[in-house]
Amino acid sequence: MLEKLKKEVYEANLLLPRYNLVTFTWGNVSGIDRERNLLVIKPSGVEYNQLTPDKMVVVDLDGNIVEGDLKPSSDTPTHCVLYKEFTKIKGIVHTHSSWAVTFAQAGIDIPAAGTTHADTFYGPIPVSRAMEKTEIVTEYEKQTGYVIVETFLKRQIDPYQVPAVLVNDHGPFTWGKSAFEAVHNAVVLEEVAKMAYHTLQLNPHQIDMDQHLLDKHYLRKHGRDAYYGQKIDK
Amino acid sequence: MLEKLKKEVYEANLLLPRYNLVTFTWGNVSGIDRERNLLVIKPSGVEYNQLTPDKMVVVDLDGNIVEGDLKPSSDTPTHCVLYKEFTKIKGIVHTHSSWAVTFAQAGIDIPAAGTTHADTFYGPIPVSRAMEKTEIVTEYEKQTGYVIVETFLKRQIDPYQVPAVLVNDHGPFTWGKSAFEAVHNAVVLEEVAKMAYHTLQLNPHQIDMDQHLLDKHYLRKHGRDAYYGQKIDK
Amino acid sequence: MLEKLKKEVYEANLLLPRYNLVTFTWGNVSGIDRERNLLVIKPSGVEYNQLTPDKMVVVDLDGNIVEGDLKPSSDTPTHCVLYKEFTKIKGIVHTHSSWAVTFAQAGIDIPAAGTTHADTFYGPIPVSRAMEKTEIVTEYEKQTGYVIVETFLKRQIDPYQVPAVLVNDHGPFTWGKSAFEAVHNAVVLEEVAKMAYHTLQLNPHQIDMDQHLLDKHYLRKHGRDAYYGQKIDK
Amino acid sequence: MLEKLKKEVYEANLLLPRYNLVTFTWGNVSGIDRERNLLVIKPSGVEYNQLTPDKMVVVDLDGNIVEGDLKPSSDTPTHCVLYKEFTKIKGIVHTHSSWAVTFAQAGIDIPAAGTTHADTFYGPIPVSRAMEKTEIVTEYEKQTGYVIVETFLKRQIDPYQVPAVLVNDHGPFTWGKSAFEAVHNAVVLEEVAKMAYHTLQLNPHQIDMDQHLLDKHYLRKHGRDAYYGQKIDK
Repeated sequence: MLEKLKKEVYEANLLLPRYNLVTFTWGNVSGIDRERNLLVIKPSGVEYNQLTPDKMVVVDLDGNIVEGDLKPSSDTPTHCVLYKEFTKIKGIVHTHSSWAVTFAQAGIDIPAAGTTHADTFYGPIPVSRAMEKTEIVTEYEKQTGYVIVETFLKRQIDPYQVPAVLVNDHGPFTWGKSAFEAVHNAVVLEEVAKMAYHTLQLNPHQIDMDQHLLDKHYLRKHGRDAYYGQKIDK
Repeated sequence: MLEKLKKEVYEANLLLPRYNLVTFTWGNVSGIDRERNLLVIKPSGVEYNQLTPDKMVVVDLDGNIVEGDLKPSSDTPTHCVLYKEFTKIKGIVHTHSSWAVTFAQAGIDIPAAGTTHADTFYGPIPVSRAMEKTEIVTEYEKQTGYVIVETFLKRQIDPYQVPAVLVNDHGPFTWGKSAFEAVHNAVVLEEVAKMAYHTLQLNPHQIDMDQHLLDKHYLRKHGRDAYYGQKIDK
Repeated sequence: MLEKLKKEVYEANLLLPRYNLVTFTWGNVSGIDRERNLLVIKPSGVEYNQLTPDKMVVVDLDGNIVEGDLKPSSDTPTHCVLYKEFTKIKGIVHTHSSWAVTFAQAGIDIPAAGTTHADTFYGPIPVSRAMEKTEIVTEYEKQTGYVIVETFLKRQIDPYQVPAVLVNDHGPFTWGKSAFEAVHNAVVLEEVAKMAYHTLQLNPHQIDMDQHLLDKHYLRKHGRDAYYGQKIDK
Repeated sequence: MLEKLKKEVYEANLLLPRYNLVTFTWGNVSGIDRERNLLVIKPSGVEYNQLTPDKMVVVDLDGNIVEGDLKPSSDTPTHCVLYKEFTKIKGIVHTHSSWAVTFAQAGIDIPAAGTTHADTFYGPIPVSRAMEKTEIVTEYEKQTGYVIVETFLKRQIDPYQVPAVLVNDHGPFTWGKSAFEAVHNAVVLEEVAKMAYHTLQLNPHQIDMDQHLLDKHYLRKHGRDAYYGQKIDK
């Protein structure tokens, strides 16, 4: 079942090592079939070069295995919560990519410091609050999802315009309209985190970009009047 | 038309990923035929490994498409302004290379900190002023070109001796006597930005090099009495 | 003799350059046969691409050569002490990997700054005290082992839960239940050192992670109730 | 003539890009035949992938071309001075490697911060004083050699025990008993510069290593009682 989606999620997982986003098995990609409400996700702890489309695990939105011989990623409950709450997304990526983790460990948002950031993210990438003891001890991975959702609600950030988050002292999740777009956003996240880090070291006093420039760059690539690239609307 | 120039611009574009100057499609190279006043430039948003010489777009100096099935780079109006104003240049590169963007986001010139810099750039690489709201909202890419030109005029910097600029909160443009020389300068820019960043972290008090040393290194490679390399005059 | 272990140690040594942990010959891996009390270790100063399983050196726990035409690594006495004192380990790695050496030279523990660290190390990676003149002059490599053991004893750190140390002004040693696990831990050590360094530059005030989060991540991968990966217990 | 030396110098030059020590043509290696007092050196400004043993240039110790169709490296007079003054060396390397240049531009010695440094260099790598106007204007490259020699004389550093220097605001020169050893030292220099930089950022208060540890590591690899590697004396 879901052969096409399994192949897509398989290929998207292979992009993580190709873009140097993962060490060992520290990352996973999932995709969702919104009509059937089924997720396809990487099996837990399996090396990328051992993956095949058939090893992808199919689970429902409560994380129950529907098809597959292997255990799904231990982060599956986090993916489930995000798919339930961010109802327009169709792909999610979690990694421990180095520069994004740096900001997550520092507990600091990745500022919108220039147009490279604005081309993909319409504002700073938020870092979540630290999780409480009770959230860590019971249903940790599900609670991780709730803390992410809370971050966007409380700070009134649109998760479709800022498709990434840093979980405090942990690492990044990104999402998008497909598994591939989620990987794309994970690559951009890492690159803008690296640039923002060095910018902060060089000049911490002038880090946030002008709002008009942020508007211009985000909107020339996204939304109705976008004019970047070869398609009329992305 | 312009088959030779299209091939050159195509090959120069392929150098951007080879020199690790770009992520995804974040960079473009153009070249100009000064006799016919026609530009050849990368199509917008097309992956480098999908490019062919035939996909290069030919535009006039007002940015009108003269030949080609694809839309030209969204940065084309910036290229046009630079070719009009810096009349001796024949190639332009724009990237979001990481170290150059760091200085652009910090709003700080790349200082002439040593002979590696002086071998190519005869003084600091200037960062432009931030753009005004009206410049961003209307004809943004053309205004970007004007702000670059203004930077060289106001600060009395010779664009042929300092063939690079950092657009504030955006990134670098470089140029040269050909598309290939513009790529060469983009590579050097990134390397000297990286070195200058670390030098500033190590010793911010002694960053500008001696003027005589700057003169010596720039002039032994450029101009009438150059003696570096195998040609009498570069 | 010990053909299987020699092959394993040989292969584990080849992983050091593949994971970019070594320059030239600056690293070595050993493994032990606990029943026969014999070590297999890399020969001293031999390039990795010149190694073969047959060139691995077999020594006893006092460092005497039992089999092999080449001299064993000059660090062999350190390995011997660690195998004698940490009786459950079966593989040891020593490298001069760049980020771990940075902390060793700074004389600072690698803090447990996030879940990437906690997934492998159950607390900070300790740096040893500086060695005394007498320890350096006489039986230096053996004394290095004693200083490592002292570090874990005095600070009451469990070497099986924190399988790594930084020898002051020198570099890291890691260990594990096999030569391969020791290499795995050396890779993780380098990665978490890199992330911790940048986190400290970004926000030195909030570097230590929450104890509950540390517990959660370490224990979901290690011990009786581990649920990460495909095996019931790792 | 000097076919064997030309081949060695050719191969040593090719190691510069392989070890990521150079961008474009920014580096050169020479070797000397001490019996005939003739140098073999890279031609100026030629790409490494265009080199052949036959393109190496033979010059005498005053820099006069003895054999070869191409101009020798513009740094040839510096090499000549070093061969004349440091009479035991047989190979020299000059690069603009990034971390070494960082210290050269900051005008700061590379401190002996740990055993990785001590295994090759018996003390800090000195940075030369800034050159005077007259030295820059007249016979610049020869004066560069004199400033290097002055650095070792005035600070009473043994150039055979510390086979490297940073020319102020310029970059590193290294040397050794052969062209290959000079390349080896250039690789180590870059690696220890990188580690020292990060150590200084992490803990500037405790950067110089213990003298006994420096003695131990340098002398276990060099000199009469060396015991590292497979040879009795290196």
